[in-house]
Amino acid sequence: MAISKVAVGRSSEATAPDAIKAGFAEFIATFLFVFIGVGSVSAYNKIFPAGDITPAGLVGIALAHGLAIAITVAATANISGGHVNPAVTFGLIVGGQITVLRGLVYWIGQLLGAVLAAAVLKYVIVSGEPVPPHALSAGVSALSGVVLEIVLTFSLVFVIYATAVDPKKGSIGIIAPLAIGFTVLANHFIGVPYTGASMNPARSFGPALINWSWENHWVYWVGPLVGAAIAGLVYDGVFISNETPVATDEY
Amino acid sequence: MAISKVAVGRSSEATAPDAIKAGFAEFIATFLFVFIGVGSVSAYNKIFPAGDITPAGLVGIALAHGLAIAITVAATANISGGHVNPAVTFGLIVGGQITVLRGLVYWIGQLLGAVLAAAVLKYVIVSGEPVPPHALSAGVSALSGVVLEIVLTFSLVFVIYATAVDPKKGSIGIIAPLAIGFTVLANHFIGVPYTGASMNPARSFGPALINWSWENHWVYWVGPLVGAAIAGLVYDGVFISNETPVATDEY
Amino acid sequence: MAISKVAVGRSSEATAPDAIKAGFAEFIATFLFVFIGVGSVSAYNKIFPAGDITPAGLVGIALAHGLAIAITVAATANISGGHVNPAVTFGLIVGGQITVLRGLVYWIGQLLGAVLAAAVLKYVIVSGEPVPPHALSAGVSALSGVVLEIVLTFSLVFVIYATAVDPKKGSIGIIAPLAIGFTVLANHFIGVPYTGASMNPARSFGPALINWSWENHWVYWVGPLVGAAIAGLVYDGVFISNETPVATDEY
Amino acid sequence: MAISKVAVGRSSEATAPDAIKAGFAEFIATFLFVFIGVGSVSAYNKIFPAGDITPAGLVGIALAHGLAIAITVAATANISGGHVNPAVTFGLIVGGQITVLRGLVYWIGQLLGAVLAAAVLKYVIVSGEPVPPHALSAGVSALSGVVLEIVLTFSLVFVIYATAVDPKKGSIGIIAPLAIGFTVLANHFIGVPYTGASMNPARSFGPALINWSWENHWVYWVGPLVGAAIAGLVYDGVFISNETPVATDEY
Repeated sequence: MAISKVAVGRSSEATAPDAIKAGFAEFIATFLFVFIGVGSVSAYNKIFPAGDITPAGLVGIALAHGLAIAITVAATANISGGHVNPAVTFGLIVGGQITVLRGLVYWIGQLLGAVLAAAVLKYVIVSGEPVPPHALSAGVSALSGVVLEIVLTFSLVFVIYATAVDPKKGSIGIIAPLAIGFTVLANHFIGVPYTGASMNPARSFGPALINWSWENHWVYWVGPLVGAAIAGLVYDGVFISNETPVATDEY
Repeated sequence: MAISKVAVGRSSEATAPDAIKAGFAEFIATFLFVFIGVGSVSAYNKIFPAGDITPAGLVGIALAHGLAIAITVAATANISGGHVNPAVTFGLIVGGQITVLRGLVYWIGQLLGAVLAAAVLKYVIVSGEPVPPHALSAGVSALSGVVLEIVLTFSLVFVIYATAVDPKKGSIGIIAPLAIGFTVLANHFIGVPYTGASMNPARSFGPALINWSWENHWVYWVGPLVGAAIAGLVYDGVFISNETPVATDEY
Repeated sequence: MAISKVAVGRSSEATAPDAIKAGFAEFIATFLFVFIGVGSVSAYNKIFPAGDITPAGLVGIALAHGLAIAITVAATANISGGHVNPAVTFGLIVGGQITVLRGLVYWIGQLLGAVLAAAVLKYVIVSGEPVPPHALSAGVSALSGVVLEIVLTFSLVFVIYATAVDPKKGSIGIIAPLAIGFTVLANHFIGVPYTGASMNPARSFGPALINWSWENHWVYWVGPLVGAAIAGLVYDGVFISNETPVATDEY
Repeated sequence: MAISKVAVGRSSEATAPDAIKAGFAEFIATFLFVFIGVGSVSAYNKIFPAGDITPAGLVGIALAHGLAIAITVAATANISGGHVNPAVTFGLIVGGQITVLRGLVYWIGQLLGAVLAAAVLKYVIVSGEPVPPHALSAGVSALSGVVLEIVLTFSLVFVIYATAVDPKKGSIGIIAPLAIGFTVLANHFIGVPYTGASMNPARSFGPALINWSWENHWVYWVGPLVGAAIAGLVYDGVFISNETPVATDEY
């Protein structure tokens, strides 16, 4: 089972200049993703104060999140591997692609970036209004929410493994940032009306901390982390099981 | 005529580990495509309960389906060839690109994935509400529906042959998953108001089985299969007729 | 001046099997483009019978046309050069990229494809309703319309020269079909409310013939052809003037 | 510190035929970008005269601007480096990628192109109606506007450095024009309701000059230039600091 591939890493690795640079890249990328993504929701609320999501508003918010992932993945792919998401980092740890220590550096960068983005939005851009947090819609049970986040994050990490990790990816790797961003984009059309389509604990954590609103927040950690882990185990175990494991920081 | 290229295949082929893996990849990919696609329709119905399709809702549903195809094709292109659609598999059998036996394994994976997606949607995510099936809109005859599905699926399989099968595709192959997904995306803007723009019997079959609603269901098999077969015969016969046939599982 | 580069071609060239295949590819590609493009307008009219274009409807129609160009260009790039547009063919003749005779074969294929698409739409899919023709909106003068079509088609052919013709295009050529399609897509957001954003005489000709509605039809030939010619002359004269002219059928 | 990399350039460089051609390419590209971008706003105002931006209108305007950048960058990448934006040119000067003199030639081309685009729109296409200028929305302070433009332009120039400048960009460079355009596209969903999402002084300058409306115009120079400079300093200083500086005109 692929779980045996999880590598703790040497403590020197996490503090090496390369890991710090990679963590800094994850900080910037996640800052930009959360700034653009959450900002697109704030902006929508500004031009459509009734507040409920409409089909046209959903298109804009989906494009903002999906393309923001595409561009931040493209921008950091050759520095940190372009995770921009703690669940992605977790899914790559589970499949043995990066070490736990390096992953911790990434998580710190990602969460700090997300919090800074939510703070700049709240206190500078939208002038003190609440920054919209992820929440389950009325009538959506926590179980439904968790299952939905599992499936959506599974699709995201499966696409990452296939287009950016798998050694036999070939020229598909060239369009990997687009495929990854388009996965996030498409998933918004099913996810937003139920859970907000997080797939990313950092995206959920930034606004939750700044607004201090934690209702059902665990859904946005459990769902994405479980979905990412399943994708990592399945893809690594079934589709690249014959390859020798490669511990690389460039998924 | 290219029809002579259809190969039955050795029985060992369909049960070989490689074919099973490929069929499993088709299962996962079709599960994700149907989950995202049908889920986007359920989600639209949730935020716009009046139910009729609006121009803005159409944009979202088209993006969800088209990009879901782009990413699942990208994710499985190097495993199974990335069909994600029984009509595509049929069109490639007709043009001699894969054997009938391997195609049967794909069909089983695709249909099982579609049914599982519709079931998870109905019983877990949308809490027992009907999963929206494909249906002909009021005033659309079965003939119009079949012709429309023929033309739309013809365009899809023609693009697949040109960008992913044809040996002279060159660097166009790099963007093949995007071209294939964008074909599905664009076709939704003409197809949805008439037939739902299936182009894919599995996409239609999953919700039909779970809802047990079979009205005009044959349209979503006959149209796509005929359109795919014509595309396979025309492209193979006219545009790659000089090449020696290559039986490959990586279109 | 680049105009001296226009080559008539040997009569044998236009009738050679390769030219006929290329013309057939242009026929299929233009059929699909006009079918999807015009069909998206018919479909919009079906779900929004009030008829006037809305911002959401414009997004769908722009996506349908732009992505249909992207995919048909990708599908025929290695067969005919992927023109799918008489103005593009004209702009490439003016810059000496293809001969007049070969261009005539393309024009015949393109116009026949456009007419067939409009006919199938009118008599089979939309059950006898008019197929929406290009027309100048109320208050738009013919001069404004011609200038707008000139600029929009200039941008299209300029992008084609830079990404698909110029020998120094390098790896940009890989995304040429996307760049070409995205040009058509973006241009719809300025063009549709004034002229319909044709940029393509075949797109305008098919519905005009089937509906026998020719008002201001000349605008959709003069504007695109002039814009394409200027782009061909400027790009060829300024940006590839130092290269030796290459008469190739794969722009 | 990377600031020491700024190079003035020899006076001969700015007048060399290559620089003039590159400046001419920037003129054409910026003309087309401003024509399509501003034109999309005029066209939106024509079909939705109430004037306020709606979620569906925002999608169209974002697509028009984002894709216009993608295609003009693709079209001029191999001629001028495809800046199409004085802030991008500034960010590349700051990081030592092009000389000040060459940058001045680009600025002249960009600003002339933007003014011509606004003039053609106002006096020919929209028949004398005002060309919509960038403005701060009601309730948005100049500070908020400047910070927002800083962050948005930072993201744009960061993506440019990572995907088109960094020597280790690898095959990511193939999709650079798409990543750059998608950054502009995504940023519109947060920026339009607050500042109009300029990120580009030329885009703001053209309509401002033609309409002679300069209120808060400084915001659209200070924000983008500061954001671009920070991105240039950070990316060059942190992520390509170990490379020897390369003075190239093809970012």
